[in-house]
Amino acid sequence: MNQSSPVTELKLSRWMQQVLQIAKEGTDRGENPFGAGVFSPGGKALAIACNRVVSTNNVTAHAELNAIAEACHQLGKPDLQGYWLVATAEPCPMCMAAIATAGIRHVVFGAVQAVVTEAGYGSLGISGTDLASQFNREILLHGRIYGNECISFLLNNRKG
Amino acid sequence: MNQSSPVTELKLSRWMQQVLQIAKEGTDRGENPFGAGVFSPGGKALAIACNRVVSTNNVTAHAELNAIAEACHQLGKPDLQGYWLVATAEPCPMCMAAIATAGIRHVVFGAVQAVVTEAGYGSLGISGTDLASQFNREILLHGRIYGNECISFLLNNRKG
Repeated sequence: MNQSSPVTELKLSRWMQQVLQIAKEGTDRGENPFGAGVFSPGGKALAIACNRVVSTNNVTAHAELNAIAEACHQLGKPDLQGYWLVATAEPCPMCMAAIATAGIRHVVFGAVQAVVTEAGYGSLGISGTDLASQFNREILLHGRIYGNECISFLLNNRKG
Repeated sequence: MNQSSPVTELKLSRWMQQVLQIAKEGTDRGENPFGAGVFSPGGKALAIACNRVVSTNNVTAHAELNAIAEACHQLGKPDLQGYWLVATAEPCPMCMAAIATAGIRHVVFGAVQAVVTEAGYGSLGISGTDLASQFNREILLHGRIYGNECISFLLNNRKG
């Protein structure tokens, strides 16, 4: 993989549009309004998933964990080093730790934790960003990408 | 559920023996040496699982996440409030955040993070215990339960 592939903000927005589309299809089926995908710097979507907590009753079925699991399955190994994680909202601590454990260094997100909380989806009192700053490896966060659309999507799908 | 059921250290050790047994069966199949279970205070094992990262290639298939997913499936809801999480080793940040998100308040473990690291299974530089202290809800940690056995199991199954 070419680590020097240019990943422009325009490219990040295009990735986010794809992820947001899958998240919207999820909410149409009654899922919570979150989506995430794993992309190569070159632009290939290895996996895109929505939150599936509602349909599976599994509290850990966040979009990021689902996308990471599917991406590992696609690659046939538990290591996503070099890939980018794109999420419609700032990953929660569980997902941020999963991202780091998978070896992912670049995390792109739309809405910040405060919007997630405002939409009624709760918080553990520490954001994914705050947690990432405590890891022994560098996680590069690219927030507020395609932000207005991600924020609107969340606030239009508040927790019932 | 009777919240006042006496949960003695003897009971915790018995739970841990059950979890350790499943973890050992996992390592016999080539899995990583970690087990976890979800128990009611009365003593019912709702779910016990081993780590399945090796067999699934899924980097998130830690024993705790597997046990939580299975327990949610058993209950038919994404909420494990009132239940206890028992793990052979101190849960990593991903698993500790999952535990808190599931509404679990009591976490029982055998070997501490330092032993996990010594056995070669890495660390994000922040322990689950350190993370739990930053949550906006109280997590009660019961460490070093059946500790010698859990430590020996880990050190006898170092990462290859």
